[in-house]
Amino acid sequence: VSGTIGDLTERELIARIQSHLLPPPRWMVVGIGDDAAVIEPERNRLEVFSADALVEAVHFDRRFTPPAAIGHRALAVNLSDLAAMGAAPRLALLSFALPPTLPRDDFDGIISGLAALAARHRLHVAGGNLTRSPGPLTIDITIVGSVKRRQTLTRRGAMAGDHIYVSGSIGAAAAGLQMLQAAGRHDASGEICVQRYLYPEPRVRLGTLLGRNRAASACMDLSDGLADGVRQIAEASGVGMTIDAEALPIEPGARSWFASRGEDAVLESLTGGDDYELIFTVRPRQGGRLKPASRHGEVPLTRIGVCTAGPAVTLRRMVNGTAMETPIPSGFSHFR
Amino acid sequence: VSGTIGDLTERELIARIQSHLLPPPRWMVVGIGDDAAVIEPERNRLEVFSADALVEAVHFDRRFTPPAAIGHRALAVNLSDLAAMGAAPRLALLSFALPPTLPRDDFDGIISGLAALAARHRLHVAGGNLTRSPGPLTIDITIVGSVKRRQTLTRRGAMAGDHIYVSGSIGAAAAGLQMLQAAGRHDASGEICVQRYLYPEPRVRLGTLLGRNRAASACMDLSDGLADGVRQIAEASGVGMTIDAEALPIEPGARSWFASRGEDAVLESLTGGDDYELIFTVRPRQGGRLKPASRHGEVPLTRIGVCTAGPAVTLRRMVNGTAMETPIPSGFSHFR
Repeated sequence: VSGTIGDLTERELIARIQSHLLPPPRWMVVGIGDDAAVIEPERNRLEVFSADALVEAVHFDRRFTPPAAIGHRALAVNLSDLAAMGAAPRLALLSFALPPTLPRDDFDGIISGLAALAARHRLHVAGGNLTRSPGPLTIDITIVGSVKRRQTLTRRGAMAGDHIYVSGSIGAAAAGLQMLQAAGRHDASGEICVQRYLYPEPRVRLGTLLGRNRAASACMDLSDGLADGVRQIAEASGVGMTIDAEALPIEPGARSWFASRGEDAVLESLTGGDDYELIFTVRPRQGGRLKPASRHGEVPLTRIGVCTAGPAVTLRRMVNGTAMETPIPSGFSHFR
Repeated sequence: VSGTIGDLTERELIARIQSHLLPPPRWMVVGIGDDAAVIEPERNRLEVFSADALVEAVHFDRRFTPPAAIGHRALAVNLSDLAAMGAAPRLALLSFALPPTLPRDDFDGIISGLAALAARHRLHVAGGNLTRSPGPLTIDITIVGSVKRRQTLTRRGAMAGDHIYVSGSIGAAAAGLQMLQAAGRHDASGEICVQRYLYPEPRVRLGTLLGRNRAASACMDLSDGLADGVRQIAEASGVGMTIDAEALPIEPGARSWFASRGEDAVLESLTGGDDYELIFTVRPRQGGRLKPASRHGEVPLTRIGVCTAGPAVTLRRMVNGTAMETPIPSGFSHFR
């Protein structure tokens, strides 16, 4: 059994990280260990940058999140941002604020979870920063990818009449987190939700496919839930949106979990975050362009609504045999 | 008087940041507000990346560090890393972990200190991340710059016989921090030290000049002090180094501060961090290449020693009329 990281030097911590990583590719002219990393970008490609942080007690709870899942999630949220732009991952910078009491095995577990996901996406760690934390464990990752200019996906291109799609299923991560917090037993369909919360799969392949043949007019990832996603795209594109409640691909295990607690599975799945699926819009005449994405994107795609002219973002739902439209709850909240 | 940031939404915080920033340049295809930033890099240029974090109670003390100085320092440490590579700054991603009790005026002060330094170096903020912190205020910045391949400065190129130079003066920031901690009165020469600690000037212009005419064979910035810098370059380049104590450009206010406390000004200035000067090596025949850097680098350059064949890193000092060589203390320390 090994001790805490407080007895190691920063160099020893860096060596532990490097032992998990792929060898640096040729385009990385200077990698880990100098003042900065240097890369030689490909020609005719745009560079895409994103930063996202996971903070202990805000974004994860070490009591029920295994170290490998902490590392996986920290990188997955960043990969998901690249996927939403249609970009292919190239490199990442890792910035850790580490409590000195963190067990070494936990540190290694975090790195191995992160490194395994990085290797699957051929993402190279180019450097970063290590500092100690007098408070929570914090993992801040900056990720860099590349994409051709015409293939870049933004939130701005949706037009009235565009169809709205979502990948995979929703509600799973929110239900899985509740199951972990409740610390009770759950069946196989519940385990799917738990695994989705712990090890979300960023839709990198789907994002690059949607950009490559210009299938999507706007795209975003669902880090903060579908309700937030539809509002963000609607606002950035200057359109309204109507979402069909019956069409939502709610994960079955999440649906039964929410029902067993007397909650509205539709509303919980709309507002629950952490699914890291993609929401995107498609011109009605260009639905055929989705075929390669459906075939090779490794995840089902579901049409869930339509863009409208007005600014309203609404949920269409059958209540006692009558279609009702209600505003979708705002994702805005205070910073507390 | 305004309240704390806990009552604002993330959007409102982002709007407060944007109000301080330069308008985005043409090469920034997508800036703040989408899933990621997208840039179009210049042709025939390498991209340089660095990440560095400031954590409250580890890297700064809010009791005596004004908000503008916190923002300035957070960016300065990153700009200094680019300067050490010979790279010109292009963009930065800002990742903040904010305690909800942080006063809004302090938040705005941090941003304005950071934005003022960014504007002076034509650095553009391309995005980032905001999260709340249940612990310390943390500012994690990833900075991206560009440099031509042949003009890149690393730590690896020093050879035996190369002369060793340092820019500006050393010891000032360490003395200034002690003055702030002592909270007593100090004279004008002490105020220079305090200002150096609060508002260090990253040597961006000097770094690009040293790279442009290939004057320096190795280069690094003094974030952790000169003793650490000489060891890092010596190890990366596979050389030894002898530093001449009498030649060290110790800031006068620091020298008298350390003397007044009965401390050895040479040792304190060698091991004191936060000066953010550049240390670099120059082939003896190529000393003439330093002229443009001396003339336009906006900071004096001082020759402080020579690279040797052996691995030893030593300080040469006159003691009672005799030259003594002693090992320079190691910068390694545990992570606590």
